[in-house]
Amino acid sequence: MPAAGSVSETFARFVASSTWTDIDAGLRHEAKRSLLNFFGCALGAANDPAVATAVAVMRDFSGPVPLTVIGRRERLDAMGAAFVNAIAANLLDYDDTHLETVIHPTAPVAPAALALAEQHGFRGGSLLHAFILGAEVECRIGKAVSPGHYARGWHITATCGVFGAAVACGKLLGLTEAELAAAIGIAASQSAGLVENLASAAKNVGVGNAARNGLLAALLARAGYMAAPQALEGALGWARAMGDAPTPEAFTGGLGVRWEYAANTYKPYPAGIVFHAVIDACLELRKRLGVSPDDLQSVTVRGDQLLLDRGDRPVTNARDARVSIHHCAAVAFLRGRAGVEEFELSAVADPAIAALRRKVHAECDPSLPSGGAIVTARTQDGRSMSVRVDAALGSVAQPLSDRDLEAKFRDNAARNGDEMDAEACIAAVWAIEEATSVAPLMRLMARA
Amino acid sequence: MPAAGSVSETFARFVASSTWTDIDAGLRHEAKRSLLNFFGCALGAANDPAVATAVAVMRDFSGPVPLTVIGRRERLDAMGAAFVNAIAANLLDYDDTHLETVIHPTAPVAPAALALAEQHGFRGGSLLHAFILGAEVECRIGKAVSPGHYARGWHITATCGVFGAAVACGKLLGLTEAELAAAIGIAASQSAGLVENLASAAKNVGVGNAARNGLLAALLARAGYMAAPQALEGALGWARAMGDAPTPEAFTGGLGVRWEYAANTYKPYPAGIVFHAVIDACLELRKRLGVSPDDLQSVTVRGDQLLLDRGDRPVTNARDARVSIHHCAAVAFLRGRAGVEEFELSAVADPAIAALRRKVHAECDPSLPSGGAIVTARTQDGRSMSVRVDAALGSVAQPLSDRDLEAKFRDNAARNGDEMDAEACIAAVWAIEEATSVAPLMRLMARA
Repeated sequence: MPAAGSVSETFARFVASSTWTDIDAGLRHEAKRSLLNFFGCALGAANDPAVATAVAVMRDFSGPVPLTVIGRRERLDAMGAAFVNAIAANLLDYDDTHLETVIHPTAPVAPAALALAEQHGFRGGSLLHAFILGAEVECRIGKAVSPGHYARGWHITATCGVFGAAVACGKLLGLTEAELAAAIGIAASQSAGLVENLASAAKNVGVGNAARNGLLAALLARAGYMAAPQALEGALGWARAMGDAPTPEAFTGGLGVRWEYAANTYKPYPAGIVFHAVIDACLELRKRLGVSPDDLQSVTVRGDQLLLDRGDRPVTNARDARVSIHHCAAVAFLRGRAGVEEFELSAVADPAIAALRRKVHAECDPSLPSGGAIVTARTQDGRSMSVRVDAALGSVAQPLSDRDLEAKFRDNAARNGDEMDAEACIAAVWAIEEATSVAPLMRLMARA
Repeated sequence: MPAAGSVSETFARFVASSTWTDIDAGLRHEAKRSLLNFFGCALGAANDPAVATAVAVMRDFSGPVPLTVIGRRERLDAMGAAFVNAIAANLLDYDDTHLETVIHPTAPVAPAALALAEQHGFRGGSLLHAFILGAEVECRIGKAVSPGHYARGWHITATCGVFGAAVACGKLLGLTEAELAAAIGIAASQSAGLVENLASAAKNVGVGNAARNGLLAALLARAGYMAAPQALEGALGWARAMGDAPTPEAFTGGLGVRWEYAANTYKPYPAGIVFHAVIDACLELRKRLGVSPDDLQSVTVRGDQLLLDRGDRPVTNARDARVSIHHCAAVAFLRGRAGVEEFELSAVADPAIAALRRKVHAECDPSLPSGGAIVTARTQDGRSMSVRVDAALGSVAQPLSDRDLEAKFRDNAARNGDEMDAEACIAAVWAIEEATSVAPLMRLMARA
């Protein structure tokens, strides 16, 4: 990419000039994996009260073209569908993660692009292309301001997601280079979301708005709204206002050569990502020890300070459970799995799980890598066994396979009773590149 | 107010417990003045392409209850009407100003509250009450983070306006204390808008979103969405993420005793507020000198560094003209007024005005107070006269009278040809406190 132009303009030129042949097979396949994971996560949360509430509020403000709300019977216009589907996809903390930024790339980008594509009957390949470009710009903007951005209190999935949604929608709509730059600049004036609110439904609003407002940015840019060329890097622009001052190169260096989005990862468990090694180790110990939970005397979890800071806490509800060392270890030992059910209130309140949580102790071991853990189980009969996990399942080093992602999708889809045809959904996602319209796939994702 | 509780909770308790009898006659009257000024500014911009574009984009996403778009025939649902009316009210930089924060308090708050009140047929007194409380919370939050917030790049009208809209809508909807606190916390995760974008239409999006998303915050809170109690002052909350760390007292000290909103001011001219003293002085010189512009040899404007930094610039379009010392002085001398027409492209391109702009020179005089100016005119026949203005018309010290505000409203309304009944509108605003429904007033504000 030439260095001339502002950050918005450089991104816009890249996006406007990108052709499908620029996207290699690996990126195309990764996008399908991201979408399969996305749809599953949204289906897994489709009956959650937070999703039902978002649908109910948005119904009063839904225009004449109703579109799919994943896993539900109601339909909403593109703004409403983008908002609710983004909320659903992110709700269980089960969606994908760009580990270096901790962005969940797909939740804000795919719903906006899918709603627009469903509305206009765009081709599956166009949707994939737009999604990949949106996710790339989203991850790059996030990386340019990491780690200070999140540490300062910005919920990076929301604050950067709005750029990804704007770019994906802009590409789908065929915006010119100037219009795409405007869409990015307009997105900058809509970028919001706070870490302080992560333990509450206000988090959902930030993620939903990233999708909804990104779509709005693209539509306004198409209609002629402009933005400051240096909306991102200017002296009174996005990065500085939010507390950072990266160079333009940090945003756009190696654009089209190095793909940030390619480092996307998928969670095997709906828990905080730092707890995945703990769960892996406990599942392995359970297999090797072959004892019942009653036979356990104690479970000691060692990890770095981050693990202890985030996860050594009392558990009173589902949100706590997803970021609790004790709960993660207990369900892995007791149930031999850590799926969505294991982090619901019924599991939190299960006396057997609560009893096992009390046998779990956490210790700091600064020698362990971030994301790693050593778990030691001691049995009532005096045996002791340790398992060390450096790279958890789902990390870049141990990615979930396509089969793993299909199994995860089935688990999530099954939470809607027998109303979803999971196999048809899976097949449609793998075949999306050839689909002449995104609409049939979206219809499969709605509740009958 | 008791000091217990978080900032959101303290504001929520204040708003939930406020009764109409707590609002004195001065505040009630100020709110009517703010609304009269608001409606006029929106009418003055109703035919602007930026407003037409916003309407066109929002029409595709407008739900089943259509409401008034000020000065237009189209109708939009509450989200759309709040968005567009906020954009229109702020578009010409002609709306009200809380000088200490540079917040334009009414543009984001009134449209959200008015749309909700029109939708539900709420009483005029309820609307006034909700508006005053919303504007008060908005100005207080802004003041707690001023002046660093704006200086860092945050467009404070947008970033703080969303709180005001959330509070006003929450009060109208009769939210409980807990729900109001949630609405404020949800608004924090939607707070956005950049100074870098002020010279472009992206500015409009920030202001429009403050109204639209503030309404959404109140609706979601009513439906059960929660937020972190310390969304504003928490370690990873709004103030710190945005770069400030005020004490809770800075937000809520003297709540209900000292009213920030009471310091609201109104512009006599649709130009940057620091240029108002220049215009006042030139109008006075024009009257006293009694010469034609051709007889002027030169006009020297002296002001503080801020005036020169903001206003000593070439003029190529309407946005430039509104922040140009040269243009402000030229139109005042040439036309004897500085209304909306004087800052349109036709005036910018007027050869006589352009010629007079070239005779204007700016000089720094650090001894002048901020907002003050000394203008010296020299005539071709060798006369020289100076006028000094320390407090411009429209400042706290020289407030616009009710009659001034009525005249300003008429000027703005007249920009819609003879389609507006300006006298009926003015009478309806002054009588709003007694109106059993806001709907008839809103109907008057729509184009026939």
